[in-house]
Formats: sequence, C-alpha cells, structure tokens
Amino acid sequence: MHCERIPSSLVDKVMSATEAASLFHTGMTIGMSGFTRAGDAKAIPRALAERAKTEALRFTVVTGASLGNDSDGLMAEAGLLERRLPFQVDNVLRKKINAGEVMFIDQHLSETVEQLRAGMPGKIDIAVIEAAAITAEGIIPTMSVGNSASFVEQAPQVIIELNTSVPLALAGLHDIYLPASRPARQPIPLTDPAQRIGTRAIPIDPSRIAAIVITDTPDSPSSVLPPDAETNAIAGHVIAFLEGEVVAGRMGPELAPLQAGIGTIANAVLHGLTRSSFRNLTMFSEVLQDSAIALLDSGQLAFASASSITLSSAMNVRFMRDLDRYRSRIVLRPQEISNHPELVRRLGLIALNTALEFDIYGNVNSTHVGGTHMMNGIGGSGDFARNAQVSIFVTKSIARGGDISSVVPMVSHVDHTEHDVDVLVTEYGLADLRGLAPRERAPLIIEHCVHPDYRPALREYFSRACATTGGQTPHLLSEALSWHINYAEHKTMRTVLSPA
Amino acid sequence: MHCERIPSSLVDKVMSATEAASLFHTGMTIGMSGFTRAGDAKAIPRALAERAKTEALRFTVVTGASLGNDSDGLMAEAGLLERRLPFQVDNVLRKKINAGEVMFIDQHLSETVEQLRAGMPGKIDIAVIEAAAITAEGIIPTMSVGNSASFVEQAPQVIIELNTSVPLALAGLHDIYLPASRPARQPIPLTDPAQRIGTRAIPIDPSRIAAIVITDTPDSPSSVLPPDAETNAIAGHVIAFLEGEVVAGRMGPELAPLQAGIGTIANAVLHGLTRSSFRNLTMFSEVLQDSAIALLDSGQLAFASASSITLSSAMNVRFMRDLDRYRSRIVLRPQEISNHPELVRRLGLIALNTALEFDIYGNVNSTHVGGTHMMNGIGGSGDFARNAQVSIFVTKSIARGGDISSVVPMVSHVDHTEHDVDVLVTEYGLADLRGLAPRERAPLIIEHCVHPDYRPALREYFSRACATTGGQTPHLLSEALSWHINYAEHKTMRTVLSPA
Repeated sequence: MHCERIPSSLVDKVMSATEAASLFHTGMTIGMSGFTRAGDAKAIPRALAERAKTEALRFTVVTGASLGNDSDGLMAEAGLLERRLPFQVDNVLRKKINAGEVMFIDQHLSETVEQLRAGMPGKIDIAVIEAAAITAEGIIPTMSVGNSASFVEQAPQVIIELNTSVPLALAGLHDIYLPASRPARQPIPLTDPAQRIGTRAIPIDPSRIAAIVITDTPDSPSSVLPPDAETNAIAGHVIAFLEGEVVAGRMGPELAPLQAGIGTIANAVLHGLTRSSFRNLTMFSEVLQDSAIALLDSGQLAFASASSITLSSAMNVRFMRDLDRYRSRIVLRPQEISNHPELVRRLGLIALNTALEFDIYGNVNSTHVGGTHMMNGIGGSGDFARNAQVSIFVTKSIARGGDISSVVPMVSHVDHTEHDVDVLVTEYGLADLRGLAPRERAPLIIEHCVHPDYRPALREYFSRACATTGGQTPHLLSEALSWHINYAEHKTMRTVLSPA
Repeated sequence: MHCERIPSSLVDKVMSATEAASLFHTGMTIGMSGFTRAGDAKAIPRALAERAKTEALRFTVVTGASLGNDSDGLMAEAGLLERRLPFQVDNVLRKKINAGEVMFIDQHLSETVEQLRAGMPGKIDIAVIEAAAITAEGIIPTMSVGNSASFVEQAPQVIIELNTSVPLALAGLHDIYLPASRPARQPIPLTDPAQRIGTRAIPIDPSRIAAIVITDTPDSPSSVLPPDAETNAIAGHVIAFLEGEVVAGRMGPELAPLQAGIGTIANAVLHGLTRSSFRNLTMFSEVLQDSAIALLDSGQLAFASASSITLSSAMNVRFMRDLDRYRSRIVLRPQEISNHPELVRRLGLIALNTALEFDIYGNVNSTHVGGTHMMNGIGGSGDFARNAQVSIFVTKSIARGGDISSVVPMVSHVDHTEHDVDVLVTEYGLADLRGLAPRERAPLIIEHCVHPDYRPALREYFSRACATTGGQTPHLLSEALSWHINYAEHKTMRTVLSPA
C-alpha cells in the first residue's frame, strides 16, 4: 500500500506512531505540519498524548496554523503543550490558553519562521510532516505547505507521516521556495500569482528522516457555515465596492489578486463573487475554502495561489475527483511566501479579513474576546492588511442575538490599527475610510456599519467626545470601554443604550 | 547666482514666490518636498499664507514628512490647510489638528504615495520641490528626497524652489528609484544598503515646470536635545543587547543594518554606539541625524542610506565642508524605498524607534497624548517595526517630573501591536519579549522597564487581572485606562499609587 509512496531504501524507517513517539524528549521544540486544519500531522500528536498518560512530557509545538483531528485538544488535555504558536482553533486548547496553562504566542503567520531562524522561541528539534510521498526530489506535502519546508530545513530529525488516503496525484500542486539567510537574501522573484519559483517537493537528505509513520486519516472537513442573509448582504456591499473601484479606474475588470481569510464570512463573500460579473480573477491567499473551488468551477477565477486547501466533505470529494483539472490552476506555497509582505505589497492585493469587533475610528480587534480572552489568533490578517492595496474587514454588526455590538467606541484589543484598515463592512453597509481623518471616519462608520439599535448611542458618544475632550481621535476615556464592561457584568451591551 | 543651477532654456520661468503662488486655486492637492524639516519648500508656503490674508484658500497639503521654517504653522494659522498628511511636528498645526480644524491623516510614510497612486485623498495638482539645481538629468534635490520624485511624476505642474544656499556638490548624493505601477511592478533590486538602483536626479519633462522660485533660506536646524543620564543609560542597555545578539550568533560583529527614528532618544542611542566596539556598521534608515555623522566620522559606520539628513547648525557646517568625503558613504532615497516593507524585511533591520508610552503586554502608543491628542504622527516607525529583524522601542520611564509613567496597564492608543514589538527599553533596563506570551511579557516589562515608583501598582494590577479576569491578556477593563483618567483629572498618575 505505501510502497509506491517511498523509495525502498526508506522502508526500514517505517514504524508505528507509538515507536516514533519514543523519539521525543521533554523540553523539545517540535515543528508540525498543518495549516487551517489541512495537511496536519495526525498520528504523532495522538501517540504523544497517549505517552503523556504515563510520563511527564512538555513541549513547544510550532505549526503552520491550526491543526485538525482534535490534535491540539488531545495534546492540551494531556498537558503536553508548554508553549504553542502561532495559531489555533481548538476549544480545549483555547480554554487552557485563557487559563494561563499554555503559553500561546500569537504571531503574524509570515513571521514564525523568521523568528525560528533566530532561535525564537527555540531551535526546532524534530519536524513532523504529513506527506503524500517521498520521492527522489524530496517530500511531497499533502493539502498544505505551511511552515513544513522550514521545519524540514531546520530540524536535525524529521518524522514523516505518510498519509495513504490522499492521492499521489497531489504531486505537482506545490511550489517550494524559501528565502536565503541574510545577508545573502535576494528579492523573491514572484510577480504573478500563477508563477512557480521553486521545487515540487521539500528537499531533504534522507539520512535525517528518523521515522516514517503510515496513516490514512483524512483532514478534518471545513467547519464553515453556509452563507446566510447577513453574509449575502456583506458580499453585496463588497462586490458593489469593487465594481466602483473598476469604474473609478483604480483596478482593471479582473480586479487585483484576492486574499480572503479563513472562516464563514470571508468564504461567503467570495461565494458572492460567483453572482458577480467579474472574470479572470486571481487569488493570492493563505487558504482556499469551498468558495475558491466554486469560483474556479464557475470559470471566474483563473488561478489560485495559497498555502493550504480546507474544504467541506462534499467539496473535497469533487476536488480529489477532478484533481488533474485543478492542479494546473492552483499552487500551494510555504506560508512565508503566501503571506510575504514583499509579495502582498508588490501584487497589490485586495485583502478581505474578518474582524471580531472594530471601533468608530477604524481600529480592529481580530483576536481577543472582551479584550482578554483569545479566540484563535491574528493569523495572516496582519500580513495582508498592512501591505494590501485595499484592506477590507468584514463582520456582522451584532453578535449573541444583539447583546454585543461589533462596533464599539474603542476596541478592547487592537490587532490592526487605523493605519492599516481601508474599508469596513457589515450587513448594513460599507465605510470607505481611505483618505479620511479619524473625525471623518466615525460618522461614516456609525451611519454605514452599525446596527440601528446601537447607532444613537455611538452618535452620542462621538458627539460628546468631540465637544469635551476633542483631539485627533476624540474619546471619553472613562466610557471608552464601558460597552465591554457592561457586557461582562450584564451579558449584554444593551444597557449602554439607556444609561442609568 | 542661479544661472549655473538651471539651463538657460528655463531662465524665463524664474519668478517671485508671490507670482508663483498665484498659480494655486482653492481646493487643490499640493505635494511639497520636505522630510524631517530637511529639503522642504520654504518660499511658497509663506507666499500662500500671505495670499490667504486677502482670499479664502483651502488646500490638501501632502509632504514627505515634517516641514521646517514654521511653514506648517504659517499655513495652519492662515487657514490654508483643509487636509494635511502624512506627518507634522508643528505646534500651531498640532493645535489646529487637535481642535478638529485641520483633517490630519496619520500614515505609514512608505504608503503615502501608494495611496496617491489610487487618488487618495486626491490627485496631486501641483508639486513644490526644493532643488539644488535642474540639469539635463532632471531635478537635483537638496537634503531630502521624501515623496518628491512621486509628486513630480504625478503632478501636471511643478514649481521648483531653487535654493542657492545649498552647495551644488549635493549632486550625486541621491538615488531615485520608483516602483512601476501594478501589475507591471518588479522586485526592488536592492540587496545592500550601499547599493544604487536609480538615477541621480528626478526625471522631468521641462514643459511641466510651471515656475522657478529662487530662495536662499537654509533648512531649520535639528531641534534634538543632547544626550543626558537617562538616554545614556538607554543607549547602554541597547548596546549590551546587541552585543548579546552577536555572542548568541544571531548577528555578525557588524550587526544588521540599523534604522533609528527621529528624535532625541534615538539620536542619543546611536551616539552611544560611538562608545561601543562595533565596526563596519551600516544604516538603512529614513533620517540621518547628528549621531549618524558622528558614527561616520568615528569610522564605525561604513555606509548610511536614508531619505533625509537633518543636522544641528554646527554639524551642518561640518557636513557641508566635507561633503565630498561624505557623499561616497551616504545615499538619499525616496521614502517609499527607504521605508519599503520589502527592503526592511529582506535586509533584516534592527529598528529603533521612540514610544510615547507602552503597556505591560508590549503594545506601543507612538502618537496620541492621553489617547486623544496627536503629537506628531506614526511616521516610519510602523514601516520599520513590522518588518525588522529586531524591533526595539525606547522611552524614558517617566515624563513630567514623574507625574506620567511611560508604562501603563493598557495604552490609550495603539500604533504598534504586541505582534510587532520585540524589545522595550527605558533607562532602568531592557525587556526582550521575543518568544514570550503576554503573561510572560508583563513581569519582564514591569521589573526591567518601569520606574520603581510605579512598579508596585503595575505588579498589583497584573496580579489581580490574572486572578480575576484571566485570559491570554489579562486586564481589568474598568481600571485599564484609569492611569490616563487620573492624569487627565489630577495632572498626575501618582494618585493610582494609593487608590482611594
């Protein structure tokens, strides 16, 4: 079964996950494949969690982004995770992070391997990489590249999880290019999303392969929700805005390359493009969701570049069936390249990311619920928003049945500053903040984006802040966070609507 | 006097500043040379302010960065400035901005011309550029390049302020390279701070030169203060840190290219390097202050790349006297290039910038006094901090005789998020935040950076926040901004030390 996937010279390295798990020592820094629950190591996390039942084990675990298959939860529950970076989406791990039991480093996804090159937070001791095959060219990744190529480059020992459930025909989907160490580093020679600049496989000296573990566990299916009335309205506003950019002559009819963040809303907006008249679109993104495949199928998307593909079960069947057709129109790159500031700026992306909340001046919170509790992490949103040609953030105007307004006087945590946010969108409308000072942004955001229930209170806050404190960015510091405080105390922000 | 500085074919375009000022119409967007009070247009702002005494005039004024010669104040006082970007340092203008009378757009300095290419906030109608000369190659700038090359490229009309007080020998100091419009944009071919990639002059079709105004007003001298005990202590901590980086093998003995922000503290830290054993240093910065010339003179700095040079009067005399010697070791570039994310990341800079305040988790406020009132602007600090190899922020631990602590529970405005801040330094010490989660950062920042008077209160805040709210970034939202509120009400934060 696996013999066609590895050279005969490596057959004697095949072992069980339990055996491979014995290669780890407490205190190690582990680099694991996996990005948005695609192409993640599946057997080793489980075997390590099992081993930890009888033995005290603590690791720093670095990944591309999120793992699937409950791996993060199993490892967190087993107490394995001393330190975790740079992103996660697991309920169990999230609780441990917010309890201060796991040290979580929330990092721009393009920067993790730069930090690792400097030994921060540690040198990679073992890499665990899911592969479709090992060939003379090297390791053929599966549905994501993430940080795998850098982990393999840096780790003295590499464990391969050979996944026999993915077709060998994935070979050729990937393009592996890593920047050289400084000061020898050269310009990244990419000027088009469809361009290939590297190799099909991750190069490796086979002597560093410490173990090969055979698995057949599929990726966890995407958990995004289908479009609804609000996300369709958001999509409509974004499409109208992009049509306006074409009319204004700022973009051609093929737009600029698109980036869309992970999640339900961004996926729905991209789905909305199938109802638009745009053609010859390209994507230069970190992740491709169902919507990207739908746009390829509709013929509107000419080419998609990313670091991972995460699909619903139904879409995954379609993708694997027609892989030969998709492979010429998709490329998967290391996340350092898919998210690289150099390329995001050069290509002039349209960046579309989801906000948890934003404020009346355009600062965005992407990560911290109530200003304190980690949701998932900043992911690649900062890599893209800072350097994009147009940086768009979307969110529904309210959450929890209206007890939370997604637009507040002052965000409780800042991930994207006013300097990096061009356009804000909710189901109620769109605020184009480009070229505007904070005092001009506030009325636009309030009137276009805020849920009608919360508009009067924000109008009144802004008006009083201008009249009393003033300044470039008028605020009433004693009330600025009161909406969040109200929610924490009363489980609703509605109390701000009729203050005592 | 000026005949050797312009071709005879242009002599008939010479006119008075008053005459040239008549070319402007209300509502225009004006691009003016000038970056950190160097190479700024001097005669036209004054003439426009004069004209506004008898006529209602309103403009959008875009510069490189700050203007000298009270130009911003004169224009603000005259009511000329409807909109101003991307940076300023003028007392009069600052008051108008904070009163909401001038709309100020606080922008990353590398991004202004990207926005202008998209017509945000408007298309440049007239460029006003200080020049040392006009030759067959084009316009020879003076002590800064800033956004001048882009203004000239975009403006239908260009007014030259020919400054006869600067030596013609400045020719050859500049390197003009502008990225092409997308999608034709190519990699910027710069891999070394000393590399020249463009032309010596700003190319221009002479038919677009609408006027030439002769001036002899020198640049305003630098207003930075000399080093003191605190800035020397900060310099000592930074140098010890950099020595540690070399010992750890993360940098060679020549370090990585240095960037240092404008201002007294960054200048003092760089001055401190003259007392270090570092040799063969390079700078890739936006501005060169006295300290850079001192390091060139000491032989420690091999080469300096920037967008402007702003010096004290005494240092300016020295610089102009030995210009032939300095010219081979300094290059001035457009600020889009000096600050370009692509280059900052590729070269792996050590970025050194000044914070107004930072919080116990490493978020930095660079711009807003009390969270509301604009000081100067973010300038290039974000361009550098985001993409640098090591991003350092420095500040004195206290201000206003100790009534303000520069380290607070939560900053009142965020310009640089925890994701972009590696190292924090005050005169008390240095906190290396790399590879650490927020809960690990706080004790380090409190014990290493905070003034001893304020340490117990911050320890207590952090401890209560962890014990009650918890989370990835523990905060007590009802107290998070109380230090600023105390200062606003009582003109001191000391009241937080013994709460009622």
